[in-house]
Amino acid sequence: MKILAVDTATESCGVALSEGEHLIGEITNRRKQTHSRHVLGMIDALLRMCGMGAGDVEAYAVSAGPGSFTGLRIGISTVKGMVLASGKDMVGISVPDVLAAQVFPGSCPVCVLPVCVLTDARKGEVYTARYRYESGMLKKISGEQVLAPEEALSGIEGDCLFVGRGAELYRSRIEGKLGKHARFAPPECNIIRASVLARLAWQRLRKGERDNAAAFGPRYIRKSDAELGFGKK
Amino acid sequence: MKILAVDTATESCGVALSEGEHLIGEITNRRKQTHSRHVLGMIDALLRMCGMGAGDVEAYAVSAGPGSFTGLRIGISTVKGMVLASGKDMVGISVPDVLAAQVFPGSCPVCVLPVCVLTDARKGEVYTARYRYESGMLKKISGEQVLAPEEALSGIEGDCLFVGRGAELYRSRIEGKLGKHARFAPPECNIIRASVLARLAWQRLRKGERDNAAAFGPRYIRKSDAELGFGKK
Repeated sequence: MKILAVDTATESCGVALSEGEHLIGEITNRRKQTHSRHVLGMIDALLRMCGMGAGDVEAYAVSAGPGSFTGLRIGISTVKGMVLASGKDMVGISVPDVLAAQVFPGSCPVCVLPVCVLTDARKGEVYTARYRYESGMLKKISGEQVLAPEEALSGIEGDCLFVGRGAELYRSRIEGKLGKHARFAPPECNIIRASVLARLAWQRLRKGERDNAAAFGPRYIRKSDAELGFGKK
Repeated sequence: MKILAVDTATESCGVALSEGEHLIGEITNRRKQTHSRHVLGMIDALLRMCGMGAGDVEAYAVSAGPGSFTGLRIGISTVKGMVLASGKDMVGISVPDVLAAQVFPGSCPVCVLPVCVLTDARKGEVYTARYRYESGMLKKISGEQVLAPEEALSGIEGDCLFVGRGAELYRSRIEGKLGKHARFAPPECNIIRASVLARLAWQRLRKGERDNAAAFGPRYIRKSDAELGFGKK
């Protein structure tokens, strides 16, 4: 099954084409521009690079959030448009699930390091979720929350692996609280990879899971600026 | 320092642009075509996507091998051409070093799983090298060799993480010999990532290390078909 995965949840923009769990091609872009300016061009370039057209895509994957309000809408709108035009399936995948999977080195039986995902939520906050290895599989052990960086570290006492742009942004504060217990992923693991989004999507699709494209919307967690402002008036 | 990394060592083709250790953009292509047909177009597309030109590149990185004879020559020739034309620096990076770094999840203090890199050397053989974590750092504990898959497993007794296309190709034979001790990286880690090539290049460049572009050549390990054939005549 050929899967086209689109990520616009954070400052980076990524597209990938896979055949089941096997990657065919991927383009990742961290240029600081609104994603609406390049995501369609990247999809077109990816399909051409792989010698395919939109008609060859059999299912779509998209970052569901949490993440940038406008960014998520761009990616999800693009994918929903392609899904509604083609009648193909789509699945949305949680952003922290993708980042946690990027630092999971296969089925390591001895790795017991918990993983804390931190992405930049702006306004001095992070989106966060925690994971632990159980029987060689990543298991999510918290909900997804938006918190101040210090609150996101609450309860972490032993060694913990931090991943995501929030881990880079707040590294000194994390080290200030946890010292040598804080471990950090290599920089390229802090960027969402559409290839990993495609792999997690394949894990859902092969089980027959689908999301309803017409009803699908971004997972924001936090209210938008407009909603927050409206409440204050 | 802006680094352009080019990988054409195996069946995949990858280009990445980084600022020091931080990725700006990356394109990965597994389309089965000779790399000479697309590598220059991919470099051009990457630079345009990142809003840059060849003149912005401050150093070059390239996969040094071992790998495909023709593939390595295409990437190395392209990079040497750009280096000689621009007067910028270049470094070559070992292919197994890149693949091992792709499954290294940060500074995990408990991960003691050795890593065995296996890439497809054709003719029923693999290029291989082994790594171990020491004090949270990856350390190479073998030379690079070309061997039959079974020979490449010699001496491995406990758990071991296998990475590279050779691990996919010969998975059943590896499992046949090692059973549950054999662990496998996620599929997207088996493809060489130019982003990781760029990060390893940055680690050398920041220490002032450079390779001599005029003298630089691919690291083949095995003789070419022509040389092997010539010896038989």
